[in-house]
Amino acid sequence: MPDQVLDDISHRRYNPLIGSWLLVSPHRTKRPWQGQQEAPSKIKLPEHDPKCYLCPGNTRAQGDSNPEYENTFAFVNDYSAVKEEQQDYNPEVNKDDVASLLLQAQPVTGRCYVLTFSAKHDLTLADMSAQEILPVIQTWTRIYASHLSPSHPLNAEAAQALERIPPNPHGEVEPPKRQLRYMQIFENKGAAMGCSNPHPHCQVWTTSTLPEEPGKELVEMTKYHGAHGRHLLEDYVKLEMEKGERIVWQNDAFLVVCPWWAVWPFEVLIIAKRHIRAIVDFTDEERLQFAEAIQEVTRRYDNLFATSFPYSSGIHQAPLDCTEDEAETSWFHMHFYPPLLRSATVRKFLVGYELLAEPQRDITPEQAAAKLRDCGGELYRKSLE
Amino acid sequence: MPDQVLDDISHRRYNPLIGSWLLVSPHRTKRPWQGQQEAPSKIKLPEHDPKCYLCPGNTRAQGDSNPEYENTFAFVNDYSAVKEEQQDYNPEVNKDDVASLLLQAQPVTGRCYVLTFSAKHDLTLADMSAQEILPVIQTWTRIYASHLSPSHPLNAEAAQALERIPPNPHGEVEPPKRQLRYMQIFENKGAAMGCSNPHPHCQVWTTSTLPEEPGKELVEMTKYHGAHGRHLLEDYVKLEMEKGERIVWQNDAFLVVCPWWAVWPFEVLIIAKRHIRAIVDFTDEERLQFAEAIQEVTRRYDNLFATSFPYSSGIHQAPLDCTEDEAETSWFHMHFYPPLLRSATVRKFLVGYELLAEPQRDITPEQAAAKLRDCGGELYRKSLE
Ligand SMILES: O=P(O)(O)O[C@H]1O[C@H](CO)[C@@H](O)[C@H](O)[C@H]1O
Ligand SMILES: O=P(O)(O)O[C@H]1O[C@H](CO)[C@@H](O)[C@H](O)[C@H]1O
Repeated sequence: MPDQVLDDISHRRYNPLIGSWLLVSPHRTKRPWQGQQEAPSKIKLPEHDPKCYLCPGNTRAQGDSNPEYENTFAFVNDYSAVKEEQQDYNPEVNKDDVASLLLQAQPVTGRCYVLTFSAKHDLTLADMSAQEILPVIQTWTRIYASHLSPSHPLNAEAAQALERIPPNPHGEVEPPKRQLRYMQIFENKGAAMGCSNPHPHCQVWTTSTLPEEPGKELVEMTKYHGAHGRHLLEDYVKLEMEKGERIVWQNDAFLVVCPWWAVWPFEVLIIAKRHIRAIVDFTDEERLQFAEAIQEVTRRYDNLFATSFPYSSGIHQAPLDCTEDEAETSWFHMHFYPPLLRSATVRKFLVGYELLAEPQRDITPEQAAAKLRDCGGELYRKSLE
Repeated sequence: MPDQVLDDISHRRYNPLIGSWLLVSPHRTKRPWQGQQEAPSKIKLPEHDPKCYLCPGNTRAQGDSNPEYENTFAFVNDYSAVKEEQQDYNPEVNKDDVASLLLQAQPVTGRCYVLTFSAKHDLTLADMSAQEILPVIQTWTRIYASHLSPSHPLNAEAAQALERIPPNPHGEVEPPKRQLRYMQIFENKGAAMGCSNPHPHCQVWTTSTLPEEPGKELVEMTKYHGAHGRHLLEDYVKLEMEKGERIVWQNDAFLVVCPWWAVWPFEVLIIAKRHIRAIVDFTDEERLQFAEAIQEVTRRYDNLFATSFPYSSGIHQAPLDCTEDEAETSWFHMHFYPPLLRSATVRKFLVGYELLAEPQRDITPEQAAAKLRDCGGELYRKSLE
């Protein structure tokens, strides 16, 4: 197998989802580390923290009180990155004017939600069972469904999902009056990933514009579909199932891999095996299988270095307002970007060379996948209790 | 002025150098912070640390001894990300084969250098005078000049530079036998930016491939030149000098701005005012003026929050091996990407939304420039001594 040599030599790999390259240096893990150490996360958080602005019953920054919710609780972020109402901005664009070319801006409106995973301050996704994660996925589904444009190609599926999934009493949000273009669901977990509150939660930012990353993916997936008549991630799932070497875990509906083009040391991709355009395409069974996949990834992460593993994760799916073609091209998947490299305290920094030149990784994705495959089983903390 | 409204509303700005957008949320700086605090950097480092593998006279990881150097000392990184010699890798590429499309790799060879700024363990660029920084720039110039391809369009300039600049006894390196394509000079400063040793130094990674970031810049600069017959950064410098609001500092040869499209809170760009394609184009006077510009940026950074300010920085210029057109299109500039946002301990994290969707910043570049303009003067530490 010619690819075996990639375990030893430095090389670049191509990320076909966004059309760019990264540098892989498998031999580089041996270098000594005198730099910053992450503080190993304190495992002993209380079940309820009276100072936490996400715990049930507590008061938030701007005076609102949280309800006595059970699992998910959704609310508009008190410090949203985008707002629904703001002053207009319509710069004059003059193609011959240098300022129009080099100082371009567009207004962005939108709304940002915060969504808790559990009422308990100390319960991460890794601690929860698939059954306990299910309400989170149901809430994501209802929020996504309720924000689709009136002419969205997935409206029938959305209506069905809203009918089948009972509303979670504190997980409901009113969609904004103005139609938005894209919804980004993401989680920052752990202080190392800039999480400003350890109470397990995710964020949902909806904007009037299509952001860069899902935008690039749509372009590449559309090109691939045009050239080959098949979906990029459809082909990729098949290929990885044949090869086997980058698979972490799978069930009937989802494949979990360290992708060929992973940048972060233990980067993982959960990919739908069939053509799911957005979360409203899921069957009841698939919702639970997705919960299982998330559970497997987060538990394996924690087991890997026996720590509450930091990461940023997020879902890519069809835009809220989109054409038939855009919906058809979309293929549901979830990225996990975790920074730890060698232990609970030694992380990978994507800094100088990575920012100025090209992302660089040390161990290969195949090596990472082998390690994650091997650390399934019970959550390491359970036996410490 | 219609742009004034951008101080208050969320908007996107376009980065014409790499062709992508970022989200700006000026109103978002007020949010509370319960997340990770950076450890304020210990200011009191010793002048010589017997355990530092960069201090003069010490022994390095693989047994080599450092010479008793005076200012710069260059050597091949003991744990290089790329190697000069390695096994061949020539994957068969078959355009109809899915693996050829989705599992693409290229071998990369190259060489990585480490280059100290000073013999003193505790002296950062901010502590050094422009005269003391000059040897660093001279060493960069000689290393770059000695690595150009035999047919490089800047060979005459390189020969002249090598003639005018006396070799620094410990700053000389033998170029590798095989011609390389690109040289990335960069610095990671501070633990927050993954710097693994506080002894002030930079790195020089040379590779057989053109990395993503300078590659994207070349594409955008070439497009702009083709469309307008002028250089993108030539026009940008003129425009910023007219507007004034994003200028931090300038001298005859260099403009220092917080660029319109800055992602990092206090991101700065040093841009050559005339068409300098690479560091070998500098006159003696310009080398000193460049040292001055670096001094101004790093001292202002430290003054801003009265701390040794972390950042990653790096130089973009003509590739080592390039066509006449590529050299003509290149325009010398240096990026600074610093993470601190509100104080010595509160940084900006580019995490969930930024990785999954689009870079997001809080204060505007105009606000950042105003703060950096205002904190010139003596290095804050001087008066504490
Ligand atoms: O080479 P260093 O300083 O040990 O390492 C640092 O810079 C490199 C280049 O940006 C990164 O790849 C490493 O993750 C970082 O820790
Ligand atoms: O919204 P939070 O959790 O306070 O903030 C965190 O996530 C955001 C979205 O990725 C980032 O912009 C912030 O820099 C980060 O600290």
